[in-house]
Amino acid sequence: MEQISELLKKLRNQSPLVQSITNYVVMNNTANALLAAGASPIMAHAHSEVKDMVNLVGALVINIGTLDEYWSESMLIAAEHAHSIQKPWVLDPVGAGATPYRNELLSKLLPFKPTVIRGNASEIMSLTSVNIKSKGVDSTNTSDEAIEAGILLSSQTDAVVVISGEVDYIIERNRISQVKNGNPIMAKITGMGCTASALTGAFVAIEKDYMLACTAAMALMGVAGDLAAEKSEGPGTLQLHFYDALYNLQPEEFGERMIVKYP
Amino acid sequence: MEQISELLKKLRNQSPLVQSITNYVVMNNTANALLAAGASPIMAHAHSEVKDMVNLVGALVINIGTLDEYWSESMLIAAEHAHSIQKPWVLDPVGAGATPYRNELLSKLLPFKPTVIRGNASEIMSLTSVNIKSKGVDSTNTSDEAIEAGILLSSQTDAVVVISGEVDYIIERNRISQVKNGNPIMAKITGMGCTASALTGAFVAIEKDYMLACTAAMALMGVAGDLAAEKSEGPGTLQLHFYDALYNLQPEEFGERMIVKYP
Amino acid sequence: MEQISELLKKLRNQSPLVQSITNYVVMNNTANALLAAGASPIMAHAHSEVKDMVNLVGALVINIGTLDEYWSESMLIAAEHAHSIQKPWVLDPVGAGATPYRNELLSKLLPFKPTVIRGNASEIMSLTSVNIKSKGVDSTNTSDEAIEAGILLSSQTDAVVVISGEVDYIIERNRISQVKNGNPIMAKITGMGCTASALTGAFVAIEKDYMLACTAAMALMGVAGDLAAEKSEGPGTLQLHFYDALYNLQPEEFGERMIVKYP
Repeated sequence: MEQISELLKKLRNQSPLVQSITNYVVMNNTANALLAAGASPIMAHAHSEVKDMVNLVGALVINIGTLDEYWSESMLIAAEHAHSIQKPWVLDPVGAGATPYRNELLSKLLPFKPTVIRGNASEIMSLTSVNIKSKGVDSTNTSDEAIEAGILLSSQTDAVVVISGEVDYIIERNRISQVKNGNPIMAKITGMGCTASALTGAFVAIEKDYMLACTAAMALMGVAGDLAAEKSEGPGTLQLHFYDALYNLQPEEFGERMIVKYP
Repeated sequence: MEQISELLKKLRNQSPLVQSITNYVVMNNTANALLAAGASPIMAHAHSEVKDMVNLVGALVINIGTLDEYWSESMLIAAEHAHSIQKPWVLDPVGAGATPYRNELLSKLLPFKPTVIRGNASEIMSLTSVNIKSKGVDSTNTSDEAIEAGILLSSQTDAVVVISGEVDYIIERNRISQVKNGNPIMAKITGMGCTASALTGAFVAIEKDYMLACTAAMALMGVAGDLAAEKSEGPGTLQLHFYDALYNLQPEEFGERMIVKYP
Repeated sequence: MEQISELLKKLRNQSPLVQSITNYVVMNNTANALLAAGASPIMAHAHSEVKDMVNLVGALVINIGTLDEYWSESMLIAAEHAHSIQKPWVLDPVGAGATPYRNELLSKLLPFKPTVIRGNASEIMSLTSVNIKSKGVDSTNTSDEAIEAGILLSSQTDAVVVISGEVDYIIERNRISQVKNGNPIMAKITGMGCTASALTGAFVAIEKDYMLACTAAMALMGVAGDLAAEKSEGPGTLQLHFYDALYNLQPEEFGERMIVKYP
């Protein structure tokens, strides 16, 4: 889709500043992915500066992976401020359902109306129900099992809901787009989901049609993953070639490679 | 040893969830190593959820590398809980002996009876004596200099003691196994010791013969290191090929490659 | 310059212990760069041990990237102690000018007389003026635009001021050296500036002529970057080959490759 591949050009031209309040495990990965794709990352979480940073950036990404009491408060301050000044923000509900503490924070973050909620199937299902048990941070459900939950969650929150998996679903109420790129080995590298959320932040910073922006982010993840997998012998080499692919991918090849169904 | 190479198969079949409360420097590495080997990592340290997580996982790994007061408390809560519910846990005493603060935390953790203590020679020697000075986090002693200390520490604590080095020693009271795989360049990558502790966590989650489990973990580290070194030109490329090797290694090749003396 | 390439030999012979109180995003990178170059990294920030660690090490590096209240206090304790016992220390003012909170911490750190201040052009300009706005953590100015600010800052603080960019400037009052190595893709990897600060810490630990030490650090960054770029297809592969190059570089090749103007 040309509309989507043009967004990659726009991303590189505008090089939006994206703030992440994210988990320790993936900070390096997500910063590198943002830089390689053409955006500019900043990580800042101090209560004393978090609002100032939200003012400066094009979008905010909140990822609850390694939360604690201080960081939870940072996330709440940032989300509330982003909501109040209408700055787009992305919520990555890592490990939703794994502990009551995570669920409680999520229930406090949702009223600040995330622009996008991106998670794996178990996380998205957990956000709409108390009956789902996640296995730590990895999904035990396939993405298509979560479509119904995604539609419900989007209706409840007004967010675009992105479910990552073998097929990625991007849901805005009852409109659904699909991305079929990507390689299963990507699940063997930590932080690929978090990276998807970071790139989503970059695209919502430059494109107000959020459904389109999210589809572009997931297509970019998938196409870069496909390109990287062709050169890789395992998850270690895949990670590197993934950054190279993000950096080198041209809009034309992006357009040709993406396997997208757009409503 | 077939018994050891079979454990790799078991690890991949069971894909145990391993919780790490570890240092910031290596979180990404250890999560990637666990994923590549076939386990499922989770990092969670909030006082409000740390016990819930210990309940969910197959094993816990505590690594004191970048400790502070909050994290020390997380480690104590988690270790006490793991001990009380008989969940296996691994202690990595990074920088033991470097400061009184580290020694004090270690003296509080040991009563919660770690299943395994894995460190370099200086760290293991430091745990049995106040007379050893470590040089930061890197060992200034060779692993065979620490055997006596390892035997003493195992007797004092009932833990399996693993001393990493050119030869790895796995000590359960006065039984000792040895692993001779691995490459000196591995010491030029940060977090290889921490990665060994993480993989040890994965094996003790699936095998109750902890001496065997620890030997398997060290053999896997060493064989993956050997395979990676053959393809590498330095520590940067070694790191990647190491993950690829962890991911691609088959039990048969694992059995052929390992250089293990088992009592 | 032979005097500079000899410093690489000295670094490897002495293998100085370098303490970093740095940001979460780059900890892994900077530890790996120090190891690959021949130094020994330690990261420790607990208020309860930070002074003990400063006593043990050859130099201290303070990087304010992901500061919060606890970490700010760690930095102040460490800087004050390093100053009082005349241990060389390097300040990396990440994001200077981006928020009042960062500026306030920097104004408290400067009286403890950093041996070296290393930043990008925007950060160095921001330290001498309230009129500069940084774009997050990436510079919006070229390094030569900051020379005047660098001279002023060096005079005000007695520090050697290092401005990273296409050309690196190393300024001690009105003496200036230049390093012209390095590749633009290095700016597409997170933490390359922080890595430069870490290596600067390694060199000031072994060489009391700080202007020379800083020039050596920047030349090593640049030459390793040049070597890595020749083998790379993008920022992902560049990162790895950079560590390999740091590890494999011999003093002779270092001397031949460096493009340095020394006053």
